[in-house]
Amino acid sequence: MNPLALLDNLRVVLVETSHPGNLGAAARAMKTMGLTRLYLVAPRCGIDDEARARASGAVDVLDGAVVCASLDEALAGTVLAAASTSRRRDLPHPAHTPRQAAPKLLEQAGGGPVALVFGSETFGLSNEQLMKCRWLINIPANPDYMSLNLGAAVQVLAYELRCTLADAVIPLPEFEAARHEEAEALLAELERALVEIGFLDPAHPKRLMPRLRRFFARAGLEREEVAIWRGILNAARAVRGPSSK
Amino acid sequence: MNPLALLDNLRVVLVETSHPGNLGAAARAMKTMGLTRLYLVAPRCGIDDEARARASGAVDVLDGAVVCASLDEALAGTVLAAASTSRRRDLPHPAHTPRQAAPKLLEQAGGGPVALVFGSETFGLSNEQLMKCRWLINIPANPDYMSLNLGAAVQVLAYELRCTLADAVIPLPEFEAARHEEAEALLAELERALVEIGFLDPAHPKRLMPRLRRFFARAGLEREEVAIWRGILNAARAVRGPSSK
Repeated sequence: MNPLALLDNLRVVLVETSHPGNLGAAARAMKTMGLTRLYLVAPRCGIDDEARARASGAVDVLDGAVVCASLDEALAGTVLAAASTSRRRDLPHPAHTPRQAAPKLLEQAGGGPVALVFGSETFGLSNEQLMKCRWLINIPANPDYMSLNLGAAVQVLAYELRCTLADAVIPLPEFEAARHEEAEALLAELERALVEIGFLDPAHPKRLMPRLRRFFARAGLEREEVAIWRGILNAARAVRGPSSK
Repeated sequence: MNPLALLDNLRVVLVETSHPGNLGAAARAMKTMGLTRLYLVAPRCGIDDEARARASGAVDVLDGAVVCASLDEALAGTVLAAASTSRRRDLPHPAHTPRQAAPKLLEQAGGGPVALVFGSETFGLSNEQLMKCRWLINIPANPDYMSLNLGAAVQVLAYELRCTLADAVIPLPEFEAARHEEAEALLAELERALVEIGFLDPAHPKRLMPRLRRFFARAGLEREEVAIWRGILNAARAVRGPSSK
């Protein structure tokens, strides 16, 4: 199974949403992370121009949304439902952060549809609704202001799922590292040049070369960069001319 | 140092934002994760009713925003600027996912202000703006639709920073990092010197300065190192003498 195909088994269920903009924001958040299956339970607003504007390039997700009368209807066929909530202490459910939950949600998605359930902007999810979900997901937040926007919460969860799937290490463009002897030759040439311009006194070198070595070591020289630095040193010497000592 | 205090050293810099709703969404995203320092560079919209509505309980962050005329102004005093962008292949800077970047951003924040830079909704960040940032941050996304909403991108980065803080002991840097304007001044001086010695042709600069910027970005300049490099440039110019053109 293509790992990304697991995302097709993840549905986002928005319960009693009241702001059309949030429907659009949720759709956009989903699509940016590769999720497409949106369920709306008893929405308190329509998919209007504001929703479409906020969905931007994810209008297809919005238009494909399945509207349900009840949470049970939206959860039908799922193997796991996880509710996003800022509540925790008063509920007996297992609670996870998105990071803890993501691998398990994906594992479950290998066996069937998994639902991520988000409550209304004002009231969240009722106890009864929460109890229909097997897991709770708590997004870590500032205890003085935990109120994530609905679209933002969808974005965070969808992001975690995608990162976990991809174990997203973005490969950097590959450059060829300089060999030890190339880097050493460059540093020796730099040292000679510093002596020539009088910046480094061979009798009292202090910590200059160790400091510069440390700087170059931190960067890690590439082959092309050795060529650039040697070019600079050569050009500097040519300009200085043979009259200087 | 209370680890959460590190969040006070993180500033969110929004460049040329055009939709007031996104200002509000960004403020709210920040506050939910404990960030408060918002900078607006040449905003193309005002902090209006829509911005305040979307900020919800984070109006204080919005009202505390520092409005700047230029990106340099917003980056003044920072020890590290990281740009959020979906571009990657055409740029030579180190690129990180939020998860890779978060521990390093927090580490740097132990030494001074760190900026997270976000471009405009339509155009993102210009090459010139990106070049002023030492790091790029790429949020992993659906390759068919990578367009995260601005507020959503701020939410993802702020969330990563908070999660990382929650489970990491942050080592402090042992050396004092150079400030943005110090590094920029050094690079400008280096560029002038390269023109003077004829290594850099201003009419055909090719990729020389981007390559050198990339090298310096990878190393990460310390304050003392800026002094060393400036000393070297000054010494080289003094030797070259007034007779050279």
